[in-house]
Amino acid sequence: MSTPIKRHNPGPVLCRAVEYGNLVFVAGTTAENKSASCKAQTEEILKKIDEALAAAGSSKSKLLWANVWLTDIREKAEMDAAWKAWVDPDNKPVRACVEARLATPDTRVEIMVTAAK
Amino acid sequence: MSTPIKRHNPGPVLCRAVEYGNLVFVAGTTAENKSASCKAQTEEILKKIDEALAAAGSSKSKLLWANVWLTDIREKAEMDAAWKAWVDPDNKPVRACVEARLATPDTRVEIMVTAAK
Amino acid sequence: MSTPIKRHNPGPVLCRAVEYGNLVFVAGTTAENKSASCKAQTEEILKKIDEALAAAGSSKSKLLWANVWLTDIREKAEMDAAWKAWVDPDNKPVRACVEARLATPDTRVEIMVTAAK
Repeated sequence: MSTPIKRHNPGPVLCRAVEYGNLVFVAGTTAENKSASCKAQTEEILKKIDEALAAAGSSKSKLLWANVWLTDIREKAEMDAAWKAWVDPDNKPVRACVEARLATPDTRVEIMVTAAK
Repeated sequence: MSTPIKRHNPGPVLCRAVEYGNLVFVAGTTAENKSASCKAQTEEILKKIDEALAAAGSSKSKLLWANVWLTDIREKAEMDAAWKAWVDPDNKPVRACVEARLATPDTRVEIMVTAAK
Repeated sequence: MSTPIKRHNPGPVLCRAVEYGNLVFVAGTTAENKSASCKAQTEEILKKIDEALAAAGSSKSKLLWANVWLTDIREKAEMDAAWKAWVDPDNKPVRACVEARLATPDTRVEIMVTAAK
């Protein structure tokens, strides 16, 4: 029997989160408030990731893997300030952070994570 | 005893797909027809991903995770048109889509997925 | 009982590697010697990945997945020369390689991998 897949909040192209065995995959997440700074956008994103993880029976303390994209890599310190205030100091994931133009020019940051359950 | 790893279609630098336990990892996939539009390149890529998944005992209905890179993020709607026509509406994965220059300038899109078995 | 998570070398924002079940996630890795060529930076990175994998009970022969980012995609052949000299010819992972501006302009390449244990 194959491991069941549980899909959360399907939209037109993707699901917000997918549970599979002992893994939770969360979609690339951006902020609604596009006029906010990179730091504030990151804070909003991390709140949304908290919610997605909770709905899938996980939490930031079980983060395994993260990919961060910044529209301007020079805003990395801003993003990291919000990240450091949020991440569980005893349970940091692996991470890569690179620059990439995102869906709209005022989207300053996008974050995608995978967590344990 | 460790979980066996099954590797598909090894090339000079990578395998097209790798099966491991209940997971199937597929390599970043691009189109052969580089003169085609972003939409047509996406259609070709998704056909190749179907084939790679089938060879590894999976299918698009078991997609878990996807990363899409576009040479020009303004072509996202084109890519999404092909994606929406292809993806199983009841089984959408998580996804991130960002801009990145790819191996050649006429490569408009590259897609990498992970699926369940 | 949930699968234990083992975290290696925590820094201010991330861990170098995370073991979870039969998977090992390694963080996006860059070279210390920023004045080196893309090829030499790749060689240094692959040595660091070897060390991270060994510390987590894995090795390059168990690579499953890789993402490579290049500051200039035209240096792909240089990166691939170092990659081909390093990768286990019988055990190549899936991989995607795209261009992205990285943390500093002289960082020519960053590599993130996931491996089996």
